[in-house]
Amino acid sequence: MPVNLPGLSILHPVSGIRLGTACAGIRKKDRRDLVVIECAAETRVAATFTRNRFCAAPVTVAREHLARNAPRALLINTGFANAGTGLAGLEDARSSCAVLAQLLSCQAGEILPFSTGVIGERFPLARIISGLPTCLTQLDENGWAEAAQGIMTTDTVPKGASRKVSIGAHTVIVTGIAKGAGMIRPDMATLLAFVATDAVVAADVLQTCISTAIQRSFNRITVDGDTSTNDACVLLATGRAGHPAIERVEGEAYAELLRVVTEVFTELAQAVVRDAEGATKFITIEVRGGRSESDCLEVAYTIAHSPLVKTAFFASDPNWGRILAAIGRAPIAQLDVNSVAVYLNDVCVVRDGALDAGYTEARGLAVTRLPEIHVGIELGAGSASAQIWTSDLSHEYVRINAEYRS
Amino acid sequence: MPVNLPGLSILHPVSGIRLGTACAGIRKKDRRDLVVIECAAETRVAATFTRNRFCAAPVTVAREHLARNAPRALLINTGFANAGTGLAGLEDARSSCAVLAQLLSCQAGEILPFSTGVIGERFPLARIISGLPTCLTQLDENGWAEAAQGIMTTDTVPKGASRKVSIGAHTVIVTGIAKGAGMIRPDMATLLAFVATDAVVAADVLQTCISTAIQRSFNRITVDGDTSTNDACVLLATGRAGHPAIERVEGEAYAELLRVVTEVFTELAQAVVRDAEGATKFITIEVRGGRSESDCLEVAYTIAHSPLVKTAFFASDPNWGRILAAIGRAPIAQLDVNSVAVYLNDVCVVRDGALDAGYTEARGLAVTRLPEIHVGIELGAGSASAQIWTSDLSHEYVRINAEYRS
Repeated sequence: MPVNLPGLSILHPVSGIRLGTACAGIRKKDRRDLVVIECAAETRVAATFTRNRFCAAPVTVAREHLARNAPRALLINTGFANAGTGLAGLEDARSSCAVLAQLLSCQAGEILPFSTGVIGERFPLARIISGLPTCLTQLDENGWAEAAQGIMTTDTVPKGASRKVSIGAHTVIVTGIAKGAGMIRPDMATLLAFVATDAVVAADVLQTCISTAIQRSFNRITVDGDTSTNDACVLLATGRAGHPAIERVEGEAYAELLRVVTEVFTELAQAVVRDAEGATKFITIEVRGGRSESDCLEVAYTIAHSPLVKTAFFASDPNWGRILAAIGRAPIAQLDVNSVAVYLNDVCVVRDGALDAGYTEARGLAVTRLPEIHVGIELGAGSASAQIWTSDLSHEYVRINAEYRS
Repeated sequence: MPVNLPGLSILHPVSGIRLGTACAGIRKKDRRDLVVIECAAETRVAATFTRNRFCAAPVTVAREHLARNAPRALLINTGFANAGTGLAGLEDARSSCAVLAQLLSCQAGEILPFSTGVIGERFPLARIISGLPTCLTQLDENGWAEAAQGIMTTDTVPKGASRKVSIGAHTVIVTGIAKGAGMIRPDMATLLAFVATDAVVAADVLQTCISTAIQRSFNRITVDGDTSTNDACVLLATGRAGHPAIERVEGEAYAELLRVVTEVFTELAQAVVRDAEGATKFITIEVRGGRSESDCLEVAYTIAHSPLVKTAFFASDPNWGRILAAIGRAPIAQLDVNSVAVYLNDVCVVRDGALDAGYTEARGLAVTRLPEIHVGIELGAGSASAQIWTSDLSHEYVRINAEYRS
């Protein structure tokens, strides 16, 4: 069960973006597994991809196509990741683009392919191709909810977020969908996010916007530290909202766009953690008082990836010794252990590197029993800070990841 | 159940080393929980300690004492780690040394203290002190097996190793005991190893010997990546074997000593992984063809710490996609994915970065079903190599670490 994650809220359509899905039987019958996102001409596209060196074939192809062309459509399949498939996988990805391009009367290089699912097996090209016409007949500006379902792998709920914001006298929409988290999925590869806006934005400004927003959202979540081979996040801007174009990162209009894009990204990123495999807790780790943001992040991720800390949270155990031990091994240049403080929500557990005099196990337990926990770390070394979100490590995580192929 | 780890073999006594244990009721009744290891005068002592900044009080005190004095005895308790206990913990550690020193008619600075167990609670000084006389009456050169029991926390079996080796015409003994692994223990802090030899060795040569041997043994194991606050490894040399003193690291005598010390360290380190919490597999990861040893180690540890790889091994699932994904995110400067090969024992799974033509799931399964698995990675980038040992991630690991305090 996801942690505090209700069903999809209203996903406002974005003028110029149409979405169509199909049940193509790619890996399972009768589930939406193929999605086409069509972009109107003049749509600006910015994207970020996994930094895993074993990136999937569609990632390689999407990068190539994006470098040379303004995309007309995104083609997304679930079921197979098309990763670890060598040259044959690249050919498969290119072929699927070529067929969709023909149906849309555009060039193969104007299609961006995305895949998620099992690693290491070739995807069923024929089934994907035969599903494409259905996707195209379904194309609709109100197709976001179906598309959110169509990109799921072992996600338990579809994930979407949508905002309206005023830029000058104009209303701008930002709507997006996402699936997965880190590489928490068994044989699945993993985080995909597609967000669109009708804002009028120059291409380089849009790229800055996605890069900045992603640093505060998708790049701040972790479930198991396993970076996927297929991660991709795409931000589309159709330019139909009618306001004066945002051509510089200075000024109020860009600030407003960045704020709302970051908000949508963050809601999607947190949704992914809330639905992490086996998750029973949603944990925010905030590290303050560091000498640099990267020091704060190192400490936060060391805590978030510690199997001992994660199993303690699963047990609702305020096991602060494990948190201290994780801080103590974080790879940062300097750490004055006598300045460290640890908080669970507003309960001070450790002050000046040792147990706080006012702390009691009962006060700690009252926090760790909650489904949402804020872990505050004070390093006492500077003024930098950073915040990430993670989940706990439960029996269910082991079951899902151990038994998936059995 | 530990993986292929039979009971203690014969632990040869080391002339000049006497060991005494007691059931002091430190945390549980009727279990050996207090150990004194007495060293004859002239014993050389070399040691390495945890690099966790939140090191335990006994680690701080042992480091101080070792810097100034030739130790006469080691004092070890299980049950409480005396970590995260602030100034009071330091006082407790010093007091326990002072009392033992009085009983042995030496200085407090000649005692090295070691603790393992729950983090964050002060240890029961009075019970430890009242157990010391029993330890002293039990002092015996044949006390190794009892001492191996007396340092256990949640270890399921005591761990020891012993070798005889010829140095010139003389027989030299190397005998040691260890407990734990990484920081896999719930609230426990963790790896302690005490190894003694009657070899005649200069102090600086002994320090070189321990540092070199540890790099090939204890520093090559991981269970969960969680470095303990209390790790310590001590090598004692009583100098009673009668051979000409080893005063240089050149020459055959040192090479022989290093070889056998490394062998004992490795057997102990592997025993710790074999008895890792919830372990059902003993996994060797060997990375070859790297540009440097550190590159090879980064790749090996990234695989070993991946929860997805570890759960796949628990499921006996030859899930090579997860191994590739881990290699792909390893933090090394350069990686040519098209040169990478992956072997499970002698079965080639991946060649030139993609599935080997001769590989079948059945061949992979035949390996991953075994309790001992060798994962061979070929990077194809150079001539360096490295090898580490690890365990899988099972339901039992989560159960033990989540439910320990419940």
